[in-house]
Amino acid sequence: MLELSRTGQPVGAPPPPPPAPPEKEEQAAGVGILLQISMLVLAFVLGHVLRRHKISYLPEASASLLIGLIVGGLANISNTETNIRGWFNFHEEFFFLFLLPPIIFRSGFSLAPKPFFSNFGAIVTFAILGTFVASIVTGVLVYLGGLTYLMYRLPLVECLMFGALISATDPVTVLSIFQELGTDENLYALVFGESVLNDAMAIALYRTMSSVKSNDSSGQNLFFVVLNFLETFFGSMSSGVGVGLLSALLFKYAGLNVENLHNLESCLFVLFPYFSYMLAEGLGLSGIVSILFTGIVMKRYTFSNLSENSQHFSAAFFHLLSSLAETFVFIYMGFDIGMEQHSWSHVGFIFFSILCIGVARAANVFSCAYLVNLVRPANRQIPLQHQKALWYSGLRGAMAFALALQSVHDLPDGHGQTIFTATTAIVVLTVLLIGGSTSTMLRALKVVGDGHNGPLEESFEGKNCNIGSSYDEGTSSGGKLKMKLKEFHSNASFTTLDRHYLTPFLHLMTMVMMMTTTMMMERILMTQLKIREERALQGPN
Amino acid sequence: MLELSRTGQPVGAPPPPPPAPPEKEEQAAGVGILLQISMLVLAFVLGHVLRRHKISYLPEASASLLIGLIVGGLANISNTETNIRGWFNFHEEFFFLFLLPPIIFRSGFSLAPKPFFSNFGAIVTFAILGTFVASIVTGVLVYLGGLTYLMYRLPLVECLMFGALISATDPVTVLSIFQELGTDENLYALVFGESVLNDAMAIALYRTMSSVKSNDSSGQNLFFVVLNFLETFFGSMSSGVGVGLLSALLFKYAGLNVENLHNLESCLFVLFPYFSYMLAEGLGLSGIVSILFTGIVMKRYTFSNLSENSQHFSAAFFHLLSSLAETFVFIYMGFDIGMEQHSWSHVGFIFFSILCIGVARAANVFSCAYLVNLVRPANRQIPLQHQKALWYSGLRGAMAFALALQSVHDLPDGHGQTIFTATTAIVVLTVLLIGGSTSTMLRALKVVGDGHNGPLEESFEGKNCNIGSSYDEGTSSGGKLKMKLKEFHSNASFTTLDRHYLTPFLHLMTMVMMMTTTMMMERILMTQLKIREERALQGPN
Repeated sequence: MLELSRTGQPVGAPPPPPPAPPEKEEQAAGVGILLQISMLVLAFVLGHVLRRHKISYLPEASASLLIGLIVGGLANISNTETNIRGWFNFHEEFFFLFLLPPIIFRSGFSLAPKPFFSNFGAIVTFAILGTFVASIVTGVLVYLGGLTYLMYRLPLVECLMFGALISATDPVTVLSIFQELGTDENLYALVFGESVLNDAMAIALYRTMSSVKSNDSSGQNLFFVVLNFLETFFGSMSSGVGVGLLSALLFKYAGLNVENLHNLESCLFVLFPYFSYMLAEGLGLSGIVSILFTGIVMKRYTFSNLSENSQHFSAAFFHLLSSLAETFVFIYMGFDIGMEQHSWSHVGFIFFSILCIGVARAANVFSCAYLVNLVRPANRQIPLQHQKALWYSGLRGAMAFALALQSVHDLPDGHGQTIFTATTAIVVLTVLLIGGSTSTMLRALKVVGDGHNGPLEESFEGKNCNIGSSYDEGTSSGGKLKMKLKEFHSNASFTTLDRHYLTPFLHLMTMVMMMTTTMMMERILMTQLKIREERALQGPN
Repeated sequence: MLELSRTGQPVGAPPPPPPAPPEKEEQAAGVGILLQISMLVLAFVLGHVLRRHKISYLPEASASLLIGLIVGGLANISNTETNIRGWFNFHEEFFFLFLLPPIIFRSGFSLAPKPFFSNFGAIVTFAILGTFVASIVTGVLVYLGGLTYLMYRLPLVECLMFGALISATDPVTVLSIFQELGTDENLYALVFGESVLNDAMAIALYRTMSSVKSNDSSGQNLFFVVLNFLETFFGSMSSGVGVGLLSALLFKYAGLNVENLHNLESCLFVLFPYFSYMLAEGLGLSGIVSILFTGIVMKRYTFSNLSENSQHFSAAFFHLLSSLAETFVFIYMGFDIGMEQHSWSHVGFIFFSILCIGVARAANVFSCAYLVNLVRPANRQIPLQHQKALWYSGLRGAMAFALALQSVHDLPDGHGQTIFTATTAIVVLTVLLIGGSTSTMLRALKVVGDGHNGPLEESFEGKNCNIGSSYDEGTSSGGKLKMKLKEFHSNASFTTLDRHYLTPFLHLMTMVMMMTTTMMMERILMTQLKIREERALQGPN
């Protein structure tokens, strides 16, 4: 496994240790991991206590962030710093390859298909057009700020990179806070869907800008950006759906759902999502979009082919992994921010960036909602308070953080460091302030269910024991929703939906998949050829 | 997380890639992981097919090894080698920190306490005295071979390092083959217990020899080696038991076994073993001994405090993780061996080494069995066929492989490479030949149960559904054993055993734990001081 080292830190990465006895290094790594595990345990216990006492202004995510901040701050004060820094070195790769996949898969796996697909048009509008608008607006405002000496001046393309990475509203953060409360199902689907899909858009935009910068070829125009995004998005979706369907076929016909093969069944079941993620990444597509759709498909079509024991197990397994990964991400972010020797000369940059992203998010949400409302019938308009809630829920989290880490690489002349500092500050502020006030805001806007019915994840577990209605597991975000769901089942509209909507969609997807498989094979060959050519040239380009 | 790069390869590690676009590196890592996942899926499916057709001469472990060998060989032939090599770079750290803990924990967790503790004296004799004898005999024979020009000549201390690392009979390999069959419970306990504990001895011996070599101070004598081992062993055991008891107390009094908290409960439960492993590693003790005892204690005292759902879940969870880790280890070993450009000039060394380890293992097993039989009453003698089976079962596996990888580091003058080549060859030969013939051997020696009653792991799963008798989960290694177990329950001798033996042991352990906690705190402080001193000196020593 490749692990990029993080260069360009002001603190300076610890110098590569001398050829010391390996057991000492292993011991050091052991102490680091020990500290991480202790913080995880502490975060879980604290989260439990907070939830039990219904302290809504400090959600679990914020609590984890704070634990990280405090421990990082303590480590910063003590003189063992470089040592601890080494243990905790966060790699974008580690995040993208090991922490993100379980979180996103679980999102898809526990997704209620109905609200998601019935809002699909709106979600895609917010995710694609909206994120694009937000990135450009943020980038241009930051650039103008630089021109007028209000902020640190960055070149336009770097401003756009910053705009792209800071436009990724984070599914991790948003989900963990929204799940604590019970929100309106449509609002939940909008916020959730947008935050998952706009990550893909943000990554695509960021990479495009990054390649524009490194090539210095301004020939890449808007059209190519959009085309690139669409290619990535639909390619990833097809590969995800394809892997999901493959797993459904395997489990249907391999006959593993008999007694005594639970372990084999579970092993194969948990390998598929990761396979999907890695397939997409290997093809240069977006792993998170792919694994999201694999989650949706596997829940709907593979899950029911499992034996009952394996159903219980896999639901709990993915829940466990995503909880661990989520908590770890927050702790780590807090730790890194507490640890870092930030140059506070960028306070102005941070302050004005926050204003810019607020404006940009307003431009995103209200313009896209206007467009969506133009198309939708009167009874399905997005109400103004939902728009406000959507605007307010634009927390920045792990994805922005990970991309900012990458920007430290991509912009080694100190600009990346400025972007990184600003991003971490924005992440902490939005998670602590917005996260802490989300429940108040949701109640003020009257978009919350009853909120006291217990968090979503708890109602999950209860449902898990009732396999008969297993596919509604993810929809139960509050009491109101649960009621809706019941009437929904009683008039069998889901079955109708499935027959009229999902099954044709499935057939369509199978065809799309076959087409894209050919396309992908071509793409692999092209990539291979390209790598060989580049190696043959050995040029610096 | 620190990851050591592997130096001193004849093939040459791939040169550090130029500051290429990170998405390309990520993509490459993605393809590598994709390949690994595909091989895992293939190994599981193949293992299932082999088991269904009862092909005993190709156990699952060997099948995984062969898959790795074939793919590695193919990659070796193709010219994309350095690329693939980079993706697959196996780090000792990765093995010791992430693959080994779940395997060993599960061993402890699924251990039948009775046969293990009733054979404890014999196991400790084989593990401590026997491994010591085997290491010394192997080392001296290899040294003599070098002196008489039969083999490549290595200095005595390096011969002893080789002797130590090759004396680690592997729990991974041994367990996965023994579990396929149903063996006599006492023999199983002996082979299993010895192979788990002798790893600790082999690591301690290897590290001691390594530090003797690096310090060139021959002041470290036999007494210190033994003292060091005993300190490591009892320290690790106490810390493991301590963490296990801590978890038992937490789950007893935290009141998490109510409805709706399954996820929190499971999260905490799965963090404890890792905590124990890392605590021991961080203290410079043996993580595997620690996690083994944590497994035993958690199964006996923590498990029953969990809610029923979490009991099902955690048993299946650890089974899943250990299956994945085991299969991955075998695939990886095969891959690495197939991939490596071995210098076959060492064929003589390999051949004579195998003879040496055969002789050394005989010296270990038969002398220790003689000693044990001197003490045991007539009805509890270790019969000769058990001794033969024990001698035959000395497969070398992942632990020897990992230590050999480390020796490439420790002995950069090419000697490490020789040791590594010899070790990999020995691992492949013992796994394929001994592994393939183990069932024949066990049947010939008439120590097998009925063998057709289904593998141990399958009877596990069946038992898992029956929580009432959950602690006998690990004991059911075959039909004979199952019968024994039933009568065992009916006359309630286990309860008696528990009251008369385990509970006092527990009280004793609590005291030992409190003492060792103090000792450990001191040790942490000492280590910290030492590190600071060393840093202050900045000397090469």
